[in-house]
Amino acid sequence: MGSLRFLSRMRMDLNKKEKAQLKEYLDSRKKVVDDALDRYLPSTDSYPKVIFEAARYSLFAGGKRIRPVLCMAAAETCGGRVEDVLPCACALEMIHTYSLIHDDLPAMDDDVLRRGKPTSHVVFGEGIAVLAGDALLTDAFRILASEGDASNVNPRDLLSVIQEIGIAAGFFGMIGGQTVDLNSEGKDVDYETLRYIHMHKTGALIKASMRSGAILSGAAQKKLSALTAYGESIGLLFQIVDDILNVEGDASIMGKETGSDTARKKATYPSIVGLELARKRAAELVKEALSSIDSFDDRAEPLRLIARYMAERKS
Amino acid sequence: MGSLRFLSRMRMDLNKKEKAQLKEYLDSRKKVVDDALDRYLPSTDSYPKVIFEAARYSLFAGGKRIRPVLCMAAAETCGGRVEDVLPCACALEMIHTYSLIHDDLPAMDDDVLRRGKPTSHVVFGEGIAVLAGDALLTDAFRILASEGDASNVNPRDLLSVIQEIGIAAGFFGMIGGQTVDLNSEGKDVDYETLRYIHMHKTGALIKASMRSGAILSGAAQKKLSALTAYGESIGLLFQIVDDILNVEGDASIMGKETGSDTARKKATYPSIVGLELARKRAAELVKEALSSIDSFDDRAEPLRLIARYMAERKS
Repeated sequence: MGSLRFLSRMRMDLNKKEKAQLKEYLDSRKKVVDDALDRYLPSTDSYPKVIFEAARYSLFAGGKRIRPVLCMAAAETCGGRVEDVLPCACALEMIHTYSLIHDDLPAMDDDVLRRGKPTSHVVFGEGIAVLAGDALLTDAFRILASEGDASNVNPRDLLSVIQEIGIAAGFFGMIGGQTVDLNSEGKDVDYETLRYIHMHKTGALIKASMRSGAILSGAAQKKLSALTAYGESIGLLFQIVDDILNVEGDASIMGKETGSDTARKKATYPSIVGLELARKRAAELVKEALSSIDSFDDRAEPLRLIARYMAERKS
Repeated sequence: MGSLRFLSRMRMDLNKKEKAQLKEYLDSRKKVVDDALDRYLPSTDSYPKVIFEAARYSLFAGGKRIRPVLCMAAAETCGGRVEDVLPCACALEMIHTYSLIHDDLPAMDDDVLRRGKPTSHVVFGEGIAVLAGDALLTDAFRILASEGDASNVNPRDLLSVIQEIGIAAGFFGMIGGQTVDLNSEGKDVDYETLRYIHMHKTGALIKASMRSGAILSGAAQKKLSALTAYGESIGLLFQIVDDILNVEGDASIMGKETGSDTARKKATYPSIVGLELARKRAAELVKEALSSIDSFDDRAEPLRLIARYMAERKS
């Protein structure tokens, strides 16, 4: 997959060359993940066909594979190999995808469009959409545990990772965040509540992606802590930028209706602190992320570029 | 927890003494499971309160704990200790409970009553019911993996068990069965399709309960095969008896409306092969289950009693 060397660390905006390098890096990693997901997931020739069609429909709907990329980048930073964390990387993407399918349901956010395509329940009906989400979540843990069949991973480390991902996706992570989000719709939400939603609904699994890649690569405690801090910063950054894009983004780039959060009176970072402060906080978070991994060697360059790119992404 | 000795092996109906012994056995095991579930699950003092309330509401709604009991009984038959398979036993019950919550949703079976109590979505709303199911499924895998923290379990065996449970609850198990069931409503269903539904929707997780307990107790291959066969027989038995009870059961004992499958034109064993043949098949399955573990010593007596009891249960 080739190693990368990037020049600047402290500048925020990516120059043309850096953009090209990052694009090449992300494209190559995305392909590795897409190929692996295609291998791990049963084909649509399986019975009963519709559940495999529904799972694959959402899994291959144009996701950016952020979580798998972070997991693999964290592993490489610690001297691990991409191949050894591939099941874990795919499991993270499957858990993310299941959460999107369930979030889009009429009983939740009631979204009919995601990444420019009709959502699962629109195409397959609500019952199958619920089941497709359930199946992706269940199969994620199966694939995660199958990583133990490879010889390079310590089985006790893998069991720790399964627990971490279970916590990050569960009551005290993603589902906790989604619960508060669901119960906050149509209400006035304060800054602390919004922060809870962001850190749990999106942040927890992004942080767990970094930690999983590091733990499976045998990272020392100090390195693990640094990567955890990086994960916390970019997890929050990712969600704030999402909120900003929802206010001002271009619908044709975002693939969903912009302004939908405002219309639904849903709390967002810009709606509570204002657009200017939201942008300022995003810039601070990039610096915090970079600072966490400041002492790392060149293998951390992709993580640096990703953090810098996140603040300027358009979709 | 005390060991049990039972007298008769070949008679089908339980005599009074056997009934009392089985009741004592099941009650004591149920208590062990209930206490452990209470410990493993976060309290309702946690934030956000409603998701813990919803999870606990369904988890402590009077379930019989069949899967945990089978997991523990399989372990004991192989010389394992109940304590060592307790996280696994609880995880199985949590997965079963999540499947009931999602099955009851309006988009699925649309049931408003289960075990005499309003279903989750009736009490908490559809959104929280979906999330409570998701949380129980996710936390089941976390608790399962936490079993590795104990010293008595081989981590590679535990990773195998996580994969087995993932398969049994996933695309090719419970969710496959539920998908076919959902797509069959209102249609004429043939015997083969009904058999697929039964073996996957209920059978797969019951078989996995037996296998998990055995694998975690270091069972030899021959013993594991015998317990797998037992699990297959009683898995199907359990569902056929459920179908029979749905036709002729007493609503006050069943805790839900009987005849509901008929009213919904849902395929059941009696509706396809007739009530008499359904009863005959149930009796055969008891014999098959007993025959699978015929060579086992007295530690298998609870499994024998359970199989014999299953055919005569009233709820």
